[in-house]
Amino acid sequence: MATIKDVAREAGVSIATTSRVINNAPHTSETAIIAVKAAMEKLGYRPNANARALVSKSSNAIGVLVSDVSAPFFGIMVKAIDTIASEQEKQLLVGSGYHDAEKERNAISLLINSRCESLVLHSKGMSDQELTKLAKEVPGMVLINRVVPDIASRCIALDNRKGAYIATEYLIKNGHKHIGYIASSHNIDDAHDRLAGYFDALRDYGIEGRDEYVEYGEPDELGGEQAMVNLMAKNTDITAVSTYNDYMAAGCLVLLQENGIRIPEEMSVIGFDDGHMARFVYPRLTTIRYPIQLMANEAVKLSLQLANNENVERSECKLFMPTLVRRSSVGRAQ
Amino acid sequence: MATIKDVAREAGVSIATTSRVINNAPHTSETAIIAVKAAMEKLGYRPNANARALVSKSSNAIGVLVSDVSAPFFGIMVKAIDTIASEQEKQLLVGSGYHDAEKERNAISLLINSRCESLVLHSKGMSDQELTKLAKEVPGMVLINRVVPDIASRCIALDNRKGAYIATEYLIKNGHKHIGYIASSHNIDDAHDRLAGYFDALRDYGIEGRDEYVEYGEPDELGGEQAMVNLMAKNTDITAVSTYNDYMAAGCLVLLQENGIRIPEEMSVIGFDDGHMARFVYPRLTTIRYPIQLMANEAVKLSLQLANNENVERSECKLFMPTLVRRSSVGRAQ
Repeated sequence: MATIKDVAREAGVSIATTSRVINNAPHTSETAIIAVKAAMEKLGYRPNANARALVSKSSNAIGVLVSDVSAPFFGIMVKAIDTIASEQEKQLLVGSGYHDAEKERNAISLLINSRCESLVLHSKGMSDQELTKLAKEVPGMVLINRVVPDIASRCIALDNRKGAYIATEYLIKNGHKHIGYIASSHNIDDAHDRLAGYFDALRDYGIEGRDEYVEYGEPDELGGEQAMVNLMAKNTDITAVSTYNDYMAAGCLVLLQENGIRIPEEMSVIGFDDGHMARFVYPRLTTIRYPIQLMANEAVKLSLQLANNENVERSECKLFMPTLVRRSSVGRAQ
Repeated sequence: MATIKDVAREAGVSIATTSRVINNAPHTSETAIIAVKAAMEKLGYRPNANARALVSKSSNAIGVLVSDVSAPFFGIMVKAIDTIASEQEKQLLVGSGYHDAEKERNAISLLINSRCESLVLHSKGMSDQELTKLAKEVPGMVLINRVVPDIASRCIALDNRKGAYIATEYLIKNGHKHIGYIASSHNIDDAHDRLAGYFDALRDYGIEGRDEYVEYGEPDELGGEQAMVNLMAKNTDITAVSTYNDYMAAGCLVLLQENGIRIPEEMSVIGFDDGHMARFVYPRLTTIRYPIQLMANEAVKLSLQLANNENVERSECKLFMPTLVRRSSVGRAQ
């Protein structure tokens, strides 16, 4: 690849002048600009972003940690961040942590070593303590979908417990008294909080919570399908089921359909997330909206402000609220 | 952030010795190693990847261009590349081109400026000529899902035409004679090739292709739904429909369900891609498998080999073959 020396030689000017042209410095002669630009084009020279990053001590990239980039939920999150990154001519560095502390640590380490000054992390494996330490090291670090009390002002989160409460309450208000819950088997706050929200709602409406009405699975379609198989095998009286997320709800729907159980006449199902697919399963899924785009926007903006040492007036976690989205998978209890 | 000078001072050794420890150079004393590592830990020093990239003239990152990272198809592609990248302790730089030449050019430019020596590009907007020129500049550049004749050995592609042929042929073999096609409105090779494959199959089986049986839409669920609305509005005799991709098929399925049309008894539907959702729509979608994971693996390995100047014995495009995946959305013509 051509170097700045090659460009200077080709243009017949000094390296200093060449550098001035490349960096758009003022007081550079028009002749030099034309000669250097022609030489750059001819030699295919590209200014070295790594060299610039070294001088400025930061790269042009925003580091993003997700659990798994192939899950559509994280695709939407990455896209929202990418949209803002592009506006600012910044790139994304993306790492996957798969909810595992060691993998998250390695991925974050690579991002920091590349001098990403802005970091938006969806971390579920690492401890509060470790993340707090990291936040001190990296001023532009922001957490999404997690609350770490000591660095609450740098956390963007969703009230998961409230979301599951709203979902279950909607089933209760439709006359359901025997309501199952399809839970995520992952040992993360989201799973615990949503299950707690389900029990909260039952309690507030004077309905006894029963462990036999709860089944666990991987938080994907197959996990939802298997959990529903288990719920049905128990031959309980449930007429409705609240689920950890839309994927599990989708697995649940297809299983019910294949077993000839009419939705919502014989079984109501409610999801969580309002992801892409919620509108295209059959029947269209009533669910809880997780405003991940808004949250990702907020996270990346905060991260860029913090990295620029801008004054951010906030001391508390930014907590987003989930809302109900009514479609066709929930009906009145018969 | 701590510098190498700070570490040397803290450890009480020279900068040269500190550098030797950081770079795992041989013949370094155990005492120095312990002192320097302790100082690095205490000061939170991290070796600067940008500085190393500058010395080695390349970064630790693999550059990936996708159309839209929020589409699950590209999530799967990015994940496959990420898996190999992680094994090699490389990160991903991800850019989105949205099938637009200008956006693709900008994204690629950012990747190259960051000295990504390996590039895996899913480019649909830029011309063959421009990509050929770029391939000369960047030895580790590989194209996925595209064939550019002059750089065929660096292309990993799918036989899209064959895929649509297989899909349509399967409908014909199930006795269907009036077969619709739901096409993508995007002006890209994939769209043209798949539509051509549909007409090929009809012709080979002596069935007249009719333009009125073809409807176009955005290649997503809503586009598929709208195209199906248009096909139904024409009140044609079709008993089966072949679609551009699984998303369009999913939109089509939910619309048919809502209109009380039984699938597959009254209408057969076949998808394309065999993406995540194909197994969880109702009825489960018969479709064409697009081996994007295999292809992404192949692309990133080739890209790393080329970037390392390894001898790659190949002169032709690596063309992957689509295959039929039978599920429950296609039945015999009644």
